[in-house]
Amino acid sequence: MFKINENYLKLPGSYLFSTIGKKVNAYCAANPEKKVIRLGIGDVTQPLAPAIVEAMHMAVDEMGKAETFRGYAPDLGYEFLRETIAENDYRARGCDISADEIFVSDGAKCDCGNIQEIFSLENRIAVCDPVYPVYVDSNVMAGRTGTYDRDRETWSDVIYMPCTAENEFVPALPREGEKPDLIYLCFPNNPTGAVVTKVQLQEWVDYANRTGSVILYDAAYEAYITEEDIPHSIYECEGARACAIEFRSFSKNAGFTGVRLGFTVIPKELKCGEVSLHSLWARRHGTKYNGAPYIIQRAGEAVYSEAGKAQLKAQIAYYQRNAAYIFDGLKDMGYTVSGGVNSPYIWLKTPGGMTSWEFFDCLLEQVNVVGTPGSGFGPSGEGYFRLTAFGSYENTVEAVDRMKTIPL
Amino acid sequence: MFKINENYLKLPGSYLFSTIGKKVNAYCAANPEKKVIRLGIGDVTQPLAPAIVEAMHMAVDEMGKAETFRGYAPDLGYEFLRETIAENDYRARGCDISADEIFVSDGAKCDCGNIQEIFSLENRIAVCDPVYPVYVDSNVMAGRTGTYDRDRETWSDVIYMPCTAENEFVPALPREGEKPDLIYLCFPNNPTGAVVTKVQLQEWVDYANRTGSVILYDAAYEAYITEEDIPHSIYECEGARACAIEFRSFSKNAGFTGVRLGFTVIPKELKCGEVSLHSLWARRHGTKYNGAPYIIQRAGEAVYSEAGKAQLKAQIAYYQRNAAYIFDGLKDMGYTVSGGVNSPYIWLKTPGGMTSWEFFDCLLEQVNVVGTPGSGFGPSGEGYFRLTAFGSYENTVEAVDRMKTIPL
Repeated sequence: MFKINENYLKLPGSYLFSTIGKKVNAYCAANPEKKVIRLGIGDVTQPLAPAIVEAMHMAVDEMGKAETFRGYAPDLGYEFLRETIAENDYRARGCDISADEIFVSDGAKCDCGNIQEIFSLENRIAVCDPVYPVYVDSNVMAGRTGTYDRDRETWSDVIYMPCTAENEFVPALPREGEKPDLIYLCFPNNPTGAVVTKVQLQEWVDYANRTGSVILYDAAYEAYITEEDIPHSIYECEGARACAIEFRSFSKNAGFTGVRLGFTVIPKELKCGEVSLHSLWARRHGTKYNGAPYIIQRAGEAVYSEAGKAQLKAQIAYYQRNAAYIFDGLKDMGYTVSGGVNSPYIWLKTPGGMTSWEFFDCLLEQVNVVGTPGSGFGPSGEGYFRLTAFGSYENTVEAVDRMKTIPL
Repeated sequence: MFKINENYLKLPGSYLFSTIGKKVNAYCAANPEKKVIRLGIGDVTQPLAPAIVEAMHMAVDEMGKAETFRGYAPDLGYEFLRETIAENDYRARGCDISADEIFVSDGAKCDCGNIQEIFSLENRIAVCDPVYPVYVDSNVMAGRTGTYDRDRETWSDVIYMPCTAENEFVPALPREGEKPDLIYLCFPNNPTGAVVTKVQLQEWVDYANRTGSVILYDAAYEAYITEEDIPHSIYECEGARACAIEFRSFSKNAGFTGVRLGFTVIPKELKCGEVSLHSLWARRHGTKYNGAPYIIQRAGEAVYSEAGKAQLKAQIAYYQRNAAYIFDGLKDMGYTVSGGVNSPYIWLKTPGGMTSWEFFDCLLEQVNVVGTPGSGFGPSGEGYFRLTAFGSYENTVEAVDRMKTIPL
């Protein structure tokens, strides 16, 4: 008789955003007349930029002609895209990353979830608290997290690095005795919107090289950085090539949440003894993945074209204006808010000591605004709430105005 | 200090098709003047059908307009595609499969490689020999296969079901004492092109229900079935809903190798105690995957449109003509051949007792034709060779004619 992977049964509840989706759908079904504004799931709303649409039309036509039809893509992604990424995202910032250290994929969520496969089950992970659920859940499924404490909502074998108002939502280095092997970091942070300076990130790189740990660096939101001295890539730090894997997404900088494209960078120096992690990830790609669609990879290339860059700069500015409107609006109402400046996410303290889910229900039912409960991201997220800047400007303004009717 | 997943190091050599790719690229680099004909990797060559191209252009335009832009897709895939699949591939064949039992993905290779994650590491797998390498390699990576015997080229904890000329390349049920938990079956078969009748497949379904094992059924090539009484889906068999997961691909029936679309069917009856595998796979999708691109799912929908069906029927007929040409041509030359009739693959015995790789080199160097060594699919594949019908008709004819110059 076959058996299942029992680790799946340890997962408490369903994936956060599936839960939110179900709650919202139920509310909408019960209240069809209500206009619900979604600032919950970090999903974009602006259409694809013209340069990207044009590139996709061209690629579709190529696929429709025998002379230009493309079958299976190269395992690591097309050279034209990997070269463009290496040049624009890395060499242009002084980062020493070559095209063949870039693995094109169908998104950072998949890569963040799959990367743990190439590591030993004995490795101990460290995550920020609050944290993007995929990092932890994918390790739960693999059996790397020990037992779950339902009261504390923590896993026995996971090292949690609290990100609170006290440390401005930037985690301290692991304490004496804590020995993480894999350290998940995400800056600009999801969900708090916090960022680290280059000096702060350098401390993490030095720590990882000192202790022989790997930093799994999620830079999905780097396009929203507005301030100087905030690193866009971990490879801006000395020694990162020996200890860091970086995940990038096209979802938030180019609106590809429904297009699906991302990439992972694994420098060839990153080794465990003689074994390079690059070769392991390449083997995984070759065995369990078949490349991102040609049409989508051409869309990704267009993101870096002159026209694409200009159009996306405007698109990001549009969302940044939303972020500023939410940030300032909530502040004026007396909310305690952070994030928003170098990030599309605004992180706010729930008013009147409400729990995160109480505030979720309050917003949904009283003003029909959907956000994300901070507690869904981890225990230190309790009492906090995330709003995203990815709505339309009109909806964003309306959502903030509606929130003014909620007494603090 | 972090550790890697040591199971990866057990994998002998690289993924079969990566190895072939490297060998061919090296030959081409050394012999730029030679025109190499590729009948190795099962990659299609015909352009996308007009109905599909049209659907993709429409979807691209939708993504370029705010009113019709789509962000994150539903976890399981868009309703419009899942409903179309349920109707055309299942209900139309009398199979009781509903839309919400269908999980849309970026391809059958990924699903075949990932499905083992929801099962216990203690489960024992059974595979045909020869077999599509992904089934075994993905289990090696997970640590389910024991130790590798380099002489026999077999894994200690894998049950091999020989598919030889003696049994017409259709495996016998596991022997007494063998107790597989997960049984990988693929019909029409890759690589041999063999098929099973409905009566034969029913025996497997009955066996699985009797022993409490799960059949992982890869039906990626069902579109090539030409004979009556050959099942297109395992759900044509009584009781399959309680024991079988089916994988489908758009790669070979619609030329999507570079478009990337597939789906997996998990009936809700398929349970381990109280736990439905459907819920586990849904959780995996929700946590580690973000849906196939909207544009690609619209392309998939067009596969089932009246125009799409007619155009793809012609496209498949084109490849079937290639298959017949190779099959008949080799037979006339005196080769021992099978497959080809209900499959795009021709399986031939290597002449003069050559090993599979010897024949690979012989074909590549003497007549510049690329095929796939049978031994790359497992020990029982030694002395056999796979040719695919996915080339252009002109190249296929030329390849067969060139092979006439090789003395048997």
